[in-house]
Amino acid sequence: MNKKYKEFKAKMSKLADINYAAAVLGWDQEVNLPENAKAIRSQQLATLSGIGYENFINDELGDLLKELNIADDLSQKEKVNVNQVKKSYDKIAKKPKTFVVNMSKAISAAYFAWHEAKEKKDFKIFEGRLDELIKLKKEEAELIGYNNHIYDALLDEYEPGATVKDLDVLFIDVKENMVSFVKEITEQQQVDDSFLYKHYGQDKQWNFGIDLLIQMGYDFKSGRQDLSAHPFTTNFGSTDVRVTTRVDVNNLSEMVWSCIHEGGHALYEQGLSIEDYGLPTSSAISLGIHESQSRLWENNVGRSLPYWNANFGKLQQLFPENLTGVSAEDFYKASNKVSPSLIRTNADELTYHFHILIRYELEKALMEGNIKTADLQNAWNQKYKDYMDIDVPSVDKGVLQDIHWSHGSFGYFPTYSLGSFYAAQFYKQAEKDISDLSSKIENGNMIPLLDWLRTNVHQYGQLYTADELCERITGEKLNFKYFMEYAKEKYAGIYGF
Amino acid sequence: MNKKYKEFKAKMSKLADINYAAAVLGWDQEVNLPENAKAIRSQQLATLSGIGYENFINDELGDLLKELNIADDLSQKEKVNVNQVKKSYDKIAKKPKTFVVNMSKAISAAYFAWHEAKEKKDFKIFEGRLDELIKLKKEEAELIGYNNHIYDALLDEYEPGATVKDLDVLFIDVKENMVSFVKEITEQQQVDDSFLYKHYGQDKQWNFGIDLLIQMGYDFKSGRQDLSAHPFTTNFGSTDVRVTTRVDVNNLSEMVWSCIHEGGHALYEQGLSIEDYGLPTSSAISLGIHESQSRLWENNVGRSLPYWNANFGKLQQLFPENLTGVSAEDFYKASNKVSPSLIRTNADELTYHFHILIRYELEKALMEGNIKTADLQNAWNQKYKDYMDIDVPSVDKGVLQDIHWSHGSFGYFPTYSLGSFYAAQFYKQAEKDISDLSSKIENGNMIPLLDWLRTNVHQYGQLYTADELCERITGEKLNFKYFMEYAKEKYAGIYGF
Repeated sequence: MNKKYKEFKAKMSKLADINYAAAVLGWDQEVNLPENAKAIRSQQLATLSGIGYENFINDELGDLLKELNIADDLSQKEKVNVNQVKKSYDKIAKKPKTFVVNMSKAISAAYFAWHEAKEKKDFKIFEGRLDELIKLKKEEAELIGYNNHIYDALLDEYEPGATVKDLDVLFIDVKENMVSFVKEITEQQQVDDSFLYKHYGQDKQWNFGIDLLIQMGYDFKSGRQDLSAHPFTTNFGSTDVRVTTRVDVNNLSEMVWSCIHEGGHALYEQGLSIEDYGLPTSSAISLGIHESQSRLWENNVGRSLPYWNANFGKLQQLFPENLTGVSAEDFYKASNKVSPSLIRTNADELTYHFHILIRYELEKALMEGNIKTADLQNAWNQKYKDYMDIDVPSVDKGVLQDIHWSHGSFGYFPTYSLGSFYAAQFYKQAEKDISDLSSKIENGNMIPLLDWLRTNVHQYGQLYTADELCERITGEKLNFKYFMEYAKEKYAGIYGF
Repeated sequence: MNKKYKEFKAKMSKLADINYAAAVLGWDQEVNLPENAKAIRSQQLATLSGIGYENFINDELGDLLKELNIADDLSQKEKVNVNQVKKSYDKIAKKPKTFVVNMSKAISAAYFAWHEAKEKKDFKIFEGRLDELIKLKKEEAELIGYNNHIYDALLDEYEPGATVKDLDVLFIDVKENMVSFVKEITEQQQVDDSFLYKHYGQDKQWNFGIDLLIQMGYDFKSGRQDLSAHPFTTNFGSTDVRVTTRVDVNNLSEMVWSCIHEGGHALYEQGLSIEDYGLPTSSAISLGIHESQSRLWENNVGRSLPYWNANFGKLQQLFPENLTGVSAEDFYKASNKVSPSLIRTNADELTYHFHILIRYELEKALMEGNIKTADLQNAWNQKYKDYMDIDVPSVDKGVLQDIHWSHGSFGYFPTYSLGSFYAAQFYKQAEKDISDLSSKIENGNMIPLLDWLRTNVHQYGQLYTADELCERITGEKLNFKYFMEYAKEKYAGIYGF
């Protein structure tokens, strides 16, 4: 191995140690933190973040990257690792320290303003702070640079290579195909999902969730599940990938599909190489691909009839008081109830994309300067009326519902839709590649699917871009038609049209 | 505030952030770590430890300490903080980097050798590694320096100011008074503690332990309790002080007295100043004083009749199947069964000190060069025969029973005895200062005692040395007679002589 590359690898490993240490503190904060420890924990995290920055953006690493960038004795994988790190390095190094400090202050102020605004249902409280943030995000985009559209610079942060040009195509497809399709569904007789909202005991739910994770192939020797207010997945290297869930005793669906969703994220992380610890080839390629793994398990698998043919019997035995007389098919249908609604995180897998479409249109317009912050609330409400025929009763259930903007995350939302679309396209291919996939799932055997994902997605980390990966797996770039085909076949069956 | 002092305070706060982050990872390692994550976690901890070192031992802080050391505008507290940090700094700075690396390698090798030797019950496997460690500890003592006895340099690491001269007096007292006293006890009729070893359900034990902690005044808003293989207390600032316990369903005493013991440690940490975060005045003064807090609660309170008059009723209600017909007094007596035994960690509060006496004599002899490593096993066995009339059946239950030496911890063991002796002396004073302390305890009201400890011990951190603290509280230096008086009164009552 090139001596300089070895040096680079050691530096990246140390940086990973620091960042993963911060991740442990972050996990602990969500899962365990005593009430009085909040302020000190924030300070400890800020210190680690500063140390992480210093261990990344420094002349020594900068020079090493320049040297390695022109080295001619690196393997393909080594080249990718150097290039990917250099790309991040250059991007971050473009932001002056004063800018980073201002952004951090603006985010902190916006975060508190958003909390207050949401609580008081008053957008005005957030407006000025949001306006300041958007100005800074525009400045950030200019600092980083972009080829065509200013929003591309922000998208790239979460979905490297994603552009307005490509996303426009996708979201026009969403608008043109899905609005009418959902209308068609909602004109049919609604499925009954009332049994999901009976009383389901905490412990039995928890144990059932653990069984689902084990069945998916989640390795509890390299991870654990805990409770937290909002389910999430985090990792400190691929040998320690942790998931959390929440249990609502009056809503079974909370635990079930959050377990499967986070399990899907976790399988990706557990499938990354531990040998390449700290390097891009041991990191997920993009948020969209990450989300494809969670959604493939959650929706394509976890809301399919074969999956519940495999698992409903066990569930019924655990909760006969709620599920006697309910069939696996009834349960499958209930898990796929489609109904336009106000809150993104509660949406079904179809109308979900309207929420993202609206965010996408608004974020793009904000970055283009085609909408003023002061007009956001009305624009939001109008779009909910147009796409879903929903009246927004108050701003906390409208434009203030999500935390992301107050965190300075612009360009993040689209990756949620990308995840579903990639998932549909990948799953279609998996069905071709794995013989009798659905009967394997029906028998509770998820491992062939996991192996397929390991082979086709997980093992590569960032060796290929999202585009390249998609082409390698399916022979073409991301194409919305696979999602639409999946949706049409599935929902026509459920709603009988 | 002196500008330089402010700078110093900020540096110490950052250093605390780093060290507490490592402590979070350490806690997580004991409480949560998935099996496959061990190697990576060690690496992450080593990285943080290196960063901690760099943030402490550097010229900038060294110069700052020199300047502050001669500043004339510091308060008494500020002076103590500067002096205490300077003392640690100078001590660590005296060890060359090569020495630190060699020590770290020797400890790692000794640790694995000790594990293997203990498992195979073969001292020879450990002997060479231990010999190497002892050579290095002697070298360390010479590097650090000492006034009278080479062992003083090592003692000072755990118990600042402790010397062979003082400890010799204490341990001669132990030998002269306790050997005959324990013999007298063991000639009496033994108390019955068989009911402690019936089946006690996990959850009910756990809940009872939580109640005991709450009763002591442990603040769950600034801490939490979890399970771990070996109970311990750790903290990440005084607003996040965590305890662990273990529950053995066939041995009630494990959970009960480990809860109270760790609770005592935790109350000390929770009582330290959060304003002085990262400074010596917000850190415990010594291991001996720390242990005085755990043992005062565990033994002077938690093995007293008033304590069980307060708590036995609740316990009996939880476990009527085991405790019907048992009285609070029976329970009190059972908790104080005295019986010479092989294993330090299972020893009663009297014979415990024989284990420490033996370690003390051996460690001192090793450092003086008056005993060879090869002769340790025989010397150990002979002392167990002499002081407790016990035959050691195998070396894993003899000189290999404890991990401390393989960690390079020489000079640590004596602090356990110091803790008990301080506890007896402090408690005697508390009984004078708090009117009707024992009836308060009998009514389950532990708060006056906690307040007394907060006022007299906790609030000061390192403002006073252990010696000064003891004199402030009790009017004299540590004196073994208080422990002996406590023991005589208590055990004469229990064993009826």
